[in-house]
Amino acid sequence: MKILLVGASGTVGQGIATELEKDNEIIRVGKTSGDYQVDLTREESVRNLFNQVGKVDAIVSATGGVHFGPLTSMTTEQFNLGLQDKFLGQVRLVLIGQDFLSPGGSFTLTTGILAQQPIAQGVSATAVNGGLEAFVQAAANELRQGQRINAVSPTVLTEALESYGPFFPGFESVPASRVALAYRRSIQGVESGRVYRVW
Amino acid sequence: MKILLVGASGTVGQGIATELEKDNEIIRVGKTSGDYQVDLTREESVRNLFNQVGKVDAIVSATGGVHFGPLTSMTTEQFNLGLQDKFLGQVRLVLIGQDFLSPGGSFTLTTGILAQQPIAQGVSATAVNGGLEAFVQAAANELRQGQRINAVSPTVLTEALESYGPFFPGFESVPASRVALAYRRSIQGVESGRVYRVW
Repeated sequence: MKILLVGASGTVGQGIATELEKDNEIIRVGKTSGDYQVDLTREESVRNLFNQVGKVDAIVSATGGVHFGPLTSMTTEQFNLGLQDKFLGQVRLVLIGQDFLSPGGSFTLTTGILAQQPIAQGVSATAVNGGLEAFVQAAANELRQGQRINAVSPTVLTEALESYGPFFPGFESVPASRVALAYRRSIQGVESGRVYRVW
Repeated sequence: MKILLVGASGTVGQGIATELEKDNEIIRVGKTSGDYQVDLTREESVRNLFNQVGKVDAIVSATGGVHFGPLTSMTTEQFNLGLQDKFLGQVRLVLIGQDFLSPGGSFTLTTGILAQQPIAQGVSATAVNGGLEAFVQAAANELRQGQRINAVSPTVLTEALESYGPFFPGFESVPASRVALAYRRSIQGVESGRVYRVW
């Protein structure tokens, strides 16, 4: 299977690549690294990516930034960063990508545990992840030619505990290798409109 | 209680005003009508509104546009309309409004049944409503001085059946007067981070 993996150099992305390259062709995409580069916040950049890559059997996104900070001092502009990057960036990949995804192919987006389990300073992340999960649920009904769409929602990664651990007090971490299984399940399974929670 | 009602001229807004004006002072706000005008998509417009109105005891939003159309032909720009209008517009009202809301005061935002129950051409509405509901859940933990935040999620209104009925096949409608009770419950209740579903 030919799998387009956006965010291939991140911790989750590397886990996905390691898991899936055993039996698939992985096209690694990053902002500055990988086989191809893309900026999901720019329409032309995403169009260029697909024009270069052509048809694929699965499109995976494991990327997207949001602003972390207290609600009491958050600006609208800071909140909009997550809407434009993690939220609209992944939606853009679907809207443009549906014309380049094989019949029966799958989209797998990435949300996160904060969708249901807020942490301090994480209001924007919760809002963006919640919106993406709702998007996946609705989009599954309207995709055509058997195309499917799911999301994977990881908790904090064991590999990222050193940097992010203090923001997730008392949260159990999971290794990227376990999170990666959920992407395989989305890609090779039969379901659509699902959120696979790895927590 | 002094209640700022944004979207006062809409079907839901009129229902809220009728319910709450019995025992409260309602400041009606609209895009072009009402005691004051505001454009929630513009930062300066929201700041001007609060600078004119000053402190209030409750802030209610019953407004926000999204694009309706098939996913297969939706553009990123069309999807972003809902993110900038219904989603970020209501979030902006909270981010700026928290400095003008009395201690113990409440925000009540408006989502909708599509958050959990998708309809054809409603992908953007589902995504925006889902994001707003997640925002409310997280924001409730970070507001200060006893400020609270909830959302009301109405199904299709009986008063709007003539225009919107065909988009909601088999959905039961509710009268605006019933939806209005949920806003009263949010404003005069004790809960925060709740979504009151009227369906």
